[in-house]
Amino acid sequence: MAAAKVNGQTKEGKRNCGIDGPTNPMVTPLLTDLYQFTMAYAYWKAGKHEERAVFDLYFRKNPFGGEYTVFAGLEECIKLIANFRIAEDEIAFIRASLPPSCEDGFYDYLRGVDCSNVEIHSISEGYVVFPKVPLMRIEGPIAVVQLLETPLLNLINYASLVATNAARHRFVAGKSKLLLEFGLRRAQGPDGGIGASKYSYMGGFDATSNVAAGKLFGIPLRGTHSHAFVSSFMSPDEITDKLLHSFDGSNACEDFVSLVQTWLRKLKRSHVLGGIFGETNQSELAAFTSYALAFPSNFLALVDTYDVMRSGIPNFCAVALALKDLGYKAVGIRLDSGDLAYLSCEARKFFQAIEKEFGVPDFGKTCITASNDLNEETLDALNKQGHQVDAFGIGTHLVTCYAQPALGGVFKLVEINNQPRIKLSEDVSKVSIPCKKRCYRLYGKEGYPLVDIMVGENEPPPKVGERILCRHPFNESKRAFVVPQHVEELLKCFWPGRSGKAREELPPIKLIRERCIKQLDQMRTDHMRRLNPTPYKVSVSAKLYDFIHFLWLNEAPCGRVAVKFPRHALSERDE
Amino acid sequence: MAAAKVNGQTKEGKRNCGIDGPTNPMVTPLLTDLYQFTMAYAYWKAGKHEERAVFDLYFRKNPFGGEYTVFAGLEECIKLIANFRIAEDEIAFIRASLPPSCEDGFYDYLRGVDCSNVEIHSISEGYVVFPKVPLMRIEGPIAVVQLLETPLLNLINYASLVATNAARHRFVAGKSKLLLEFGLRRAQGPDGGIGASKYSYMGGFDATSNVAAGKLFGIPLRGTHSHAFVSSFMSPDEITDKLLHSFDGSNACEDFVSLVQTWLRKLKRSHVLGGIFGETNQSELAAFTSYALAFPSNFLALVDTYDVMRSGIPNFCAVALALKDLGYKAVGIRLDSGDLAYLSCEARKFFQAIEKEFGVPDFGKTCITASNDLNEETLDALNKQGHQVDAFGIGTHLVTCYAQPALGGVFKLVEINNQPRIKLSEDVSKVSIPCKKRCYRLYGKEGYPLVDIMVGENEPPPKVGERILCRHPFNESKRAFVVPQHVEELLKCFWPGRSGKAREELPPIKLIRERCIKQLDQMRTDHMRRLNPTPYKVSVSAKLYDFIHFLWLNEAPCGRVAVKFPRHALSERDE
Repeated sequence: MAAAKVNGQTKEGKRNCGIDGPTNPMVTPLLTDLYQFTMAYAYWKAGKHEERAVFDLYFRKNPFGGEYTVFAGLEECIKLIANFRIAEDEIAFIRASLPPSCEDGFYDYLRGVDCSNVEIHSISEGYVVFPKVPLMRIEGPIAVVQLLETPLLNLINYASLVATNAARHRFVAGKSKLLLEFGLRRAQGPDGGIGASKYSYMGGFDATSNVAAGKLFGIPLRGTHSHAFVSSFMSPDEITDKLLHSFDGSNACEDFVSLVQTWLRKLKRSHVLGGIFGETNQSELAAFTSYALAFPSNFLALVDTYDVMRSGIPNFCAVALALKDLGYKAVGIRLDSGDLAYLSCEARKFFQAIEKEFGVPDFGKTCITASNDLNEETLDALNKQGHQVDAFGIGTHLVTCYAQPALGGVFKLVEINNQPRIKLSEDVSKVSIPCKKRCYRLYGKEGYPLVDIMVGENEPPPKVGERILCRHPFNESKRAFVVPQHVEELLKCFWPGRSGKAREELPPIKLIRERCIKQLDQMRTDHMRRLNPTPYKVSVSAKLYDFIHFLWLNEAPCGRVAVKFPRHALSERDE
Repeated sequence: MAAAKVNGQTKEGKRNCGIDGPTNPMVTPLLTDLYQFTMAYAYWKAGKHEERAVFDLYFRKNPFGGEYTVFAGLEECIKLIANFRIAEDEIAFIRASLPPSCEDGFYDYLRGVDCSNVEIHSISEGYVVFPKVPLMRIEGPIAVVQLLETPLLNLINYASLVATNAARHRFVAGKSKLLLEFGLRRAQGPDGGIGASKYSYMGGFDATSNVAAGKLFGIPLRGTHSHAFVSSFMSPDEITDKLLHSFDGSNACEDFVSLVQTWLRKLKRSHVLGGIFGETNQSELAAFTSYALAFPSNFLALVDTYDVMRSGIPNFCAVALALKDLGYKAVGIRLDSGDLAYLSCEARKFFQAIEKEFGVPDFGKTCITASNDLNEETLDALNKQGHQVDAFGIGTHLVTCYAQPALGGVFKLVEINNQPRIKLSEDVSKVSIPCKKRCYRLYGKEGYPLVDIMVGENEPPPKVGERILCRHPFNESKRAFVVPQHVEELLKCFWPGRSGKAREELPPIKLIRERCIKQLDQMRTDHMRRLNPTPYKVSVSAKLYDFIHFLWLNEAPCGRVAVKFPRHALSERDE
C-alpha cells in the first residue's frame, strides 16, 4: 500500500476513507487519559491487547431535569477514528511518561496502531436519545478501543449537552422566533465557543455571532454593534462624509445627518410620540447615523446604551425614517438590558404609532431582538408576561449549559472474547447492561416512538405487528407487551473496520439539523414539556433481562471464578 | 523590513517578538463576533478606525460565591496579539459575510491590520484579582481593539474561572494533599479539557490525567487503570507470563501468580484480617496481578469494581505483599465509589494491621486516592467526617466549573481620543469606570494586601507611608484613609506597541503556578474562607471619584452633546 508522509507522519492511502481529521487539530491520540496508555501497556505485556472487546458509550440521566437528549458529536468522533495514528513525537512523549521499565516492543506496537480493525455502530447524529441505550457501540482490540474512551466521551458529552440545551431553548421560544447564539466570549475556551455554535445550530438555533464557526461549518452569521460603538461617538458634528445614495441609485442625499435630524424634530413634534422623549443622546444619534451610512440596507441598532424609550428608540426611528426616504428598510433594534417584556411592547407601540401617523407600511413590524443573560426560565417568563420580541440572542446560559454544565456519558466494557461482562455497583443506576446488543425504537399507530428496546446481538429483531415483551432492565415488575407499527434499528455502522459492512455517510450539518428538528417534532409532547415531563421508556428483551440478572448473581457480592456463559446462548438462531 | 511567507500569510520579521501563536490553532482573528467586523467597517467608513481608544477588561463579581479570583489566560492573549494577522482566505470569508455594498478599501485595510500599534497593560498571570479593577488595559486604533474584544474575553473568562476553582478546591483540601485533575472526558470540548488541565495546574493542582496537556505544558501526569481493565480479566489462569524479576535484578520469581495467591491465603488465615473477607473476586485478582507484572514499581489499583473491603483491598494487599517480597513498594489504591470517608479509614486500618502483623514497614502509609464526583462541598464534608485520603482525583466539577460555569468578564470603552467615556446602566454594578487608569495594590504592616485603588493615568502614584483617601467608586459614604507600607503597581506592559516601553516576559507555567500559590498565601484568610468571606476593598482616588460622577451626570438621563472634559484635567502634573 502506498504510504505518504503528512506532517512527518506516515498515513497509508485510503485508510481514512477520505475523511478529514477532527475540526480541532488538538484532537489527537494524546487527547486521552494517561491510564489508557498504562492499561494498553499492561494489556500488551499480558498478551491481551488484541482481544476483541465491545464497549457501549451511553449516559445514565437526561440533562436539565428533562426526559430527552439530542445526540451530537458523532462526526468529530469518526474524523478522529478515521485518522487515528500515533505520531513519532507522540510516541516519544508516551515513552517519557511511562516507567523506564516498559519494554520497547510496546512502542513498536503503538507505531502500528490505527482503527482499521475497530468497528463503530452508532445512533445517527441529531437523533433524540435516552438513558442506558448505547449511543455508540465500539468493538475492536481492547488496547485500541480503550485509547478511544476519553476522546470519544469528550467529543460526545459536551456536543450532546449543548445540542439538547439548544433544543430546549427552541421548545420554550417557539418555532416562529429567530434564535441567535451569542456565547463565544463566555464559552469554556476557544472550541467551547466553536462547539457551542456548531451544536446550537444542530439543536435548532438559526444563526451565530461566531465568525470562525460560520467559516468552518457554514452556519449563518448575525451581528450589529456594541455599546462601545455608541459611546465612541461624541456628536453628529463629527460625521464628515454625510452623502448617502438612494437604494435604487437614482438620487443621493447630500446631508444624511440633517435628514435624520429633520425626522427627529418631526417625531418630537408628534402629538402621540412627542410626550415620550425630550432631548435624545447625541452620541447615540451620531453612532446610529454613522452605522446607517455604513450599512443602509442592514441597519439594526442597539438602543439601550443610555435610555431605551427616551433616547434609543426615537434615535433609531429618526434614522430608520431617513433611510426610508431613500428607499431603504431598517432591520430593527436590539434590547440588551432592562425589562425586556415591557420595553419590547413599548417599542412595538412606538413603531406602530409611526406606521399610522407617518403612513410607513410595515414599520410596526420592525424586528425586535432581545439579549441579556437569557435562558429557558427567562424565555418562559417573557412568554407569560407577554412580549413583542422577534429574535432572541442567547449566550452564557446556552453555551456553558449553565443549568447543568456536564453530561455524564460513560464508556463500559460489555463483552470481551465473546464473554459478556457486567460492571456492578451498589447504586443500581450504575450497573451496566452486559452483552453486545442491538437497539430498536418501536413506534405506535400515531407515529410516536413508544419505547426503545435492547436485545442480544443474535436475538431476532422485533417485527411490525408482532407483540414483544419489553422489560425494565432492573425492575422486575415493570414490563409491557408492545405491538410496534414501525421498527427502527438505532445503531448503524459508521466505521466498518474489517467487517466488510457498508459505511453510513456523514451528512452535512444542515441535514443533521433538519433531522434533529424532525426528530424533536415527532416526540409525544408530554416527554418534551419543561415541568414534570413523562419519562420515555427504555427496555430490554426478556432474554436479555434474564441474562443480566444471571450475570449479576454470578459476579456479586464475591463471585469466584467468572462462569463462562457464551454470548450465543442469547441467540435463537445458530451462529 | 524582511517579509517571510508562513502558511501563505505574510509575517514581517520580528513583529511577533519571537512569540509563538496560541496553543489552539483555531484561535485566529476570525474567532470573534461578527459585530466586531461590522463595527470595524462602520469605523472605517466614518474615517474613525484609527482613533485611539482605551478599553478595560474586567469582571463585576467574584465567582463561586467567593471574594477572590485568580487571573489566568494572559499568555494565550499575548500569543494571539503577537501573531494577529488576517489571512487572505479569512478576508475572503469576511467579504462574503458582510453586505456586498461594503467597499473594497476596507478589505485592503484589513490586510494590513496587526497589533503593532496596540498597547497591552495587564495584571500578571496567576495574581489574585478583584471585581472592577482592570485585569487588562488595551489601547490602540479602535477598529483593531474591538476585533480583540471577543477572543480576549474568551481566553480569559474560562481560564480565570477554572484557575479560581482549582485554588478553591486546594483551599478546602489543604496543602498536604495531592490534587489530580481527571476531567477531560466531561470537559466542554477538547480544549475545554486542555485549558482545564493547564489552569487547574496554575491554580494549585499537582497533576493531570490529560496526556495532551502533559505534552503541551509539561504538567505532571497521573493515571492507573479503569474498571474495564478489571472486568476484562476472567481469572488468574489466563496469565501466561508469570515471571517477575526482583527490583534489584538479583533474582526472579518464576510464578508471581502463585506468590500472590500464597499471600492471599496468609491474609485470609490472619486473625485480624481473615474475618473481613472470604473469597475475593478472581477477575479482579487477575487484573491486579497482571497490572503489577506490567508496572511492578508503580502498582496502584482501583479497588471498587466488586466490593472494596471484601475483595478490592485484600486483593491489592496480596499483590502488594508479593511485590514487597521482590523488593518493590506498591504505590496504593484508588476508591471511586461509596462512602469515601468510611472506606478510606477502613482501608487505612487494614494497611496498618498488615504493617503490624507481617512487619512491613510503612505499609500502613500506603497511598489512598479518592475520586467520584468530588467538589468543594464533598471535600469539606470528608474533612468533617474524618478521612484517610492522601490524594483526590477531581473531574467534572473542577473542569466544567459546575458550581458556576461562566465568569462574566466584560470589555468596556473607557476613553477615546483622550476623551473619557462612561457606560451607564440602571444597575449601578454595570456602570463602567471611565478614564485610562493606573491600578495599585496597597499593603499593610502585616504584609497583607489592604485595598486596590484605581487612579487617573496622570495622577501621582500612592506613596509608602503617606496617607491616601480610598473611595468606593459608587457609594459616597464608603471611604477610608490608608497609609500603605508597600505599593505595587498592578498593570504592567505586556505588549508595548509603539510606545517603546519594555515588554514584560511571559514566565513558564511552573513559575506562574508558584506565583499564584504565593499570592493566595499572602491574602488575609477571612477573604478566602468558603462561608461568608469578607469582601476585599476596591477603590478609586478622590479625583477619579469626582470625575466619574461628573461624567455620569453629564451623560444621564438624556444628556445633550457630551461635554469635552480632557483626561489631563485629572492630572496634578502638567503634561
